[in-house]
Amino acid sequence: MAAKSNGPIDTGRVIPGPTNPMVTPLLTDLYQFTMAYAYWKAGKHNERAVFDLYFRKNPFGGEYTIFAGLEECIRFIANFKLTEDEIAFVRESLSSSCEDGFYDYLRGVDCLGVEVYAIAEGTVVFPKVPLIRVEGPIAVVQLLETPFLNLVNYASLVATNAARHRFVAGESKNLLEFGLRRAQGPDGGIAASRYCYLGGFHATSNVAAGKLFGIPLRGTHSHAFVSSFMSPDEIIDKTLRSSDGQSTCEDFVSLVQTWLSKIKWSKSLNGTFGETNQSEVAAFTSYALAFPNNFLALVDTYDVMRSGIPNYCAVALALNDLGYKASGIRLDSGDLAYLSCEARKIFRIIEKEFGVPEFGKTNITASNDLNEETLDALNKQGHEVDSFGIGTYVVTCYAQAALGCVFKLVEINNQPRIKLSEDVTKVSIPCKKRSYRLYGKEGYPLVDIMTGENEPPPKVGERILCRHPFNESKRAYVVPQRVEELMKCFWPGTPGGVREDLPSLRDIRERCITQLKKMRPDHMRKLNPTPYKVSVSANLYEFIHFLWLNEAPVGELQ
Amino acid sequence: MAAKSNGPIDTGRVIPGPTNPMVTPLLTDLYQFTMAYAYWKAGKHNERAVFDLYFRKNPFGGEYTIFAGLEECIRFIANFKLTEDEIAFVRESLSSSCEDGFYDYLRGVDCLGVEVYAIAEGTVVFPKVPLIRVEGPIAVVQLLETPFLNLVNYASLVATNAARHRFVAGESKNLLEFGLRRAQGPDGGIAASRYCYLGGFHATSNVAAGKLFGIPLRGTHSHAFVSSFMSPDEIIDKTLRSSDGQSTCEDFVSLVQTWLSKIKWSKSLNGTFGETNQSEVAAFTSYALAFPNNFLALVDTYDVMRSGIPNYCAVALALNDLGYKASGIRLDSGDLAYLSCEARKIFRIIEKEFGVPEFGKTNITASNDLNEETLDALNKQGHEVDSFGIGTYVVTCYAQAALGCVFKLVEINNQPRIKLSEDVTKVSIPCKKRSYRLYGKEGYPLVDIMTGENEPPPKVGERILCRHPFNESKRAYVVPQRVEELMKCFWPGTPGGVREDLPSLRDIRERCITQLKKMRPDHMRKLNPTPYKVSVSANLYEFIHFLWLNEAPVGELQ
Repeated sequence: MAAKSNGPIDTGRVIPGPTNPMVTPLLTDLYQFTMAYAYWKAGKHNERAVFDLYFRKNPFGGEYTIFAGLEECIRFIANFKLTEDEIAFVRESLSSSCEDGFYDYLRGVDCLGVEVYAIAEGTVVFPKVPLIRVEGPIAVVQLLETPFLNLVNYASLVATNAARHRFVAGESKNLLEFGLRRAQGPDGGIAASRYCYLGGFHATSNVAAGKLFGIPLRGTHSHAFVSSFMSPDEIIDKTLRSSDGQSTCEDFVSLVQTWLSKIKWSKSLNGTFGETNQSEVAAFTSYALAFPNNFLALVDTYDVMRSGIPNYCAVALALNDLGYKASGIRLDSGDLAYLSCEARKIFRIIEKEFGVPEFGKTNITASNDLNEETLDALNKQGHEVDSFGIGTYVVTCYAQAALGCVFKLVEINNQPRIKLSEDVTKVSIPCKKRSYRLYGKEGYPLVDIMTGENEPPPKVGERILCRHPFNESKRAYVVPQRVEELMKCFWPGTPGGVREDLPSLRDIRERCITQLKKMRPDHMRKLNPTPYKVSVSANLYEFIHFLWLNEAPVGELQ
Repeated sequence: MAAKSNGPIDTGRVIPGPTNPMVTPLLTDLYQFTMAYAYWKAGKHNERAVFDLYFRKNPFGGEYTIFAGLEECIRFIANFKLTEDEIAFVRESLSSSCEDGFYDYLRGVDCLGVEVYAIAEGTVVFPKVPLIRVEGPIAVVQLLETPFLNLVNYASLVATNAARHRFVAGESKNLLEFGLRRAQGPDGGIAASRYCYLGGFHATSNVAAGKLFGIPLRGTHSHAFVSSFMSPDEIIDKTLRSSDGQSTCEDFVSLVQTWLSKIKWSKSLNGTFGETNQSEVAAFTSYALAFPNNFLALVDTYDVMRSGIPNYCAVALALNDLGYKASGIRLDSGDLAYLSCEARKIFRIIEKEFGVPEFGKTNITASNDLNEETLDALNKQGHEVDSFGIGTYVVTCYAQAALGCVFKLVEINNQPRIKLSEDVTKVSIPCKKRSYRLYGKEGYPLVDIMTGENEPPPKVGERILCRHPFNESKRAYVVPQRVEELMKCFWPGTPGGVREDLPSLRDIRERCITQLKKMRPDHMRKLNPTPYKVSVSANLYEFIHFLWLNEAPVGELQ
């Protein structure tokens, strides 16, 4: 099992391998190896190539994306080396006519001659702007294409999904990721927990992810726990020491039963409650005996209002007698808006009638197939939920299960290359580029601009023309109040070269949350968000269109 | 890295650990550990519990599902043991009030006392019928819930998705899985390749999956390879030995150019082709020099009909002169139906004009965001595609990104348990059960029936009443011509006990393909398929409803 992210890493220090040991140089498409052979055979394998990794469209019908997955890419290339066993398998998979020299070449391949520039992980990013620029010997960089895309695509998708859920839920709510059981495989689950946290979730149920990444863990019990009990008679050890250790309640089970009947006959509750399910109260009592400091009960196994809530209250009040504060309830079915409001009413009545301070504020967690839409609907309806447990929809990105990052050749041997397409959104932006985020007077980012690598950077206070890369009529002058260069060097081409540290997951999460707060609200809203502008410099615009005309065949109408 | 599936495993032999080393006892929800503690604290941890793993609804709007993921579950429990490091982390994650004795207990936990009955992997399965039944000490079995669901949910979902794609594509077509770059993380990709193959795909581009599972590999080159070339002048080594080794062509580049001009001036092609892109012909020539036996060209970098096709033909014809047979083309954009038909026409004309046998049958592969719908549309339109490369939509199960398998307690200490719900589709079927598939006269499966564990099994030729578990009016008598018990023992509760072998992936794939062919066609069709019937015995029906009434609170209308 890989080590955890150990925070900032000095240039001289070792970068650990990928978190998932299955991420090896063979985690790539076969054609990367057939191409590597063809490059090698043509003597082209060491030609210097520049590739951009970017996406073309924001996911989930939104106008922003969170960039994630960079650390794993860097861990991967920092440790890139084919084993003899792997080389033997490549040989088996390629044509038997391939020459032996190629396998000697593969034996020596590493990523020391590769340079990686990237936007910092956790940054809010937009279509067409390179997230990562990889430069190096073409045969080596091609081998990186598939793993880089694999490591970035899902990470960015799920981080964005998490950020969107957080946005809809509202800042005051707690978001818990409960998706492991429905995730797309083991590290579909582990990566989901990591990148949901990055995108603003507060905790996960996934113990392995907690251990690997230091994510706070949450969890109490399931319906099976409740139905595994038959009646309170099964509880053998009924004693519970008080919170301050000063006294011991010899029969906590009876104390709970006493409270159950007090609730039943309470004046202010006015006969709301009758008999409750005894298998449920047995389970709650037993759970409270095990975790008197963390009693949180799942209240919908039998009937929330007729059984779960009164049973919870009885156990919570019994705990209160011994100086413990119960943690709350979880609702996992039914009308969550209605049930949370009804539960809140009961908690408030009990606070008043029995004089238990804060009981009205009992934490209510809701789960059960929640997603952006249901959170939005709950908000519109009005609810009393404090925490949301979200599983399937956030981890599998059910609303859009893939992000379409691509990895395109933009330059080889200092010659810019363009990929044409009849679909203009699929035309690539050629050249080794730099990109900048320009900020306006109110502190909001206004536009991202890409320039040729050697153009002078935009300057604060100086007017600059920003052009849409493909639509000649779309252009605007901007006078930036702040200019931020987006890509930094995360992996220098030379050993010992200067590079950015890899921040801790917590720092990346902070960056993400801060960046999201800085965005102009109309880019963020769920319904009809305003697209954020992405542009190229006037020079780059001219060059793109020169190259385009040069490469495109002239049609003949017949 | 884990060993490959090594075929049938005798009871005495060691079962390797999970393929993904990240699958550990910590790959579970925290509440499994909090519950384990609460069970232990209540002295209930060794109570014998029975859980069923099943799903409630077939995915993708279909009426069948392929069961997959079992081997990984068995590998997991066969090696289930918490390390000291893992126990220390559990201790850190639970309340500090938890007693030390619990951690001693965890130290001793393994799955020797657990029994696993399951349907064979690769079987066609239906809602509500248990795929896996796990029996054992309740605290241990709970710890297995999340990993089992994680390992089965996505595996079954993607295998089903693959089978559906294969069904629409038709048996004569080759299906290639190209999804690694868009998959949900590294083993979202590796598992996708494995289970797409299981579901009937023929090959993958994923080298790691090829190595782990022996899946055939496919792949040639990308657009970047094409645009990395500028012109044929760059090609230095122009020699190519003939296929029989008898002669050497000193200038293969010129030979290709000669063919290009022959095609241009061909009478039957009648001026179809003009100048082609020289960077593209350079790339094709170079690729053919590297792989004269496996020349397959991606023909849409510039313009399929004006450049890609004539360039491919020139190189293929030059190879033909030297006794090599080119492998075909790949189309990755545009109107695949139209382009494949146009390409086929050209290939046929060339076969005739230049007398190249079989050239008309050149293999055409199509890729580019294919899914069930687009395959269906291509079929309706008419096309000449021989192989489909399918990525994003098959691996991420874009049409439905999650399968909802659940793991429900059905019995504890020989007491049947039921999970109620206001939503009747969510009510669980209680009791330790057996299940059978009953076949009719024509050899098709007619109905699955669940019975209590000790009921006599249905008999061939004997009439049996099959009842819908929840709808009293739905019932039918069946006289089975064949009776198949569905669940077999894959992990016996006692060391050395008899158990089923774990078949190889190839055998599981065969089982899946054979099973699908045996289904009545109306269950399989894409539009409005007929639901397959799932039933319970008369006895079990009575018992479910007795228990239901017993547990459900009686409402009061106010």
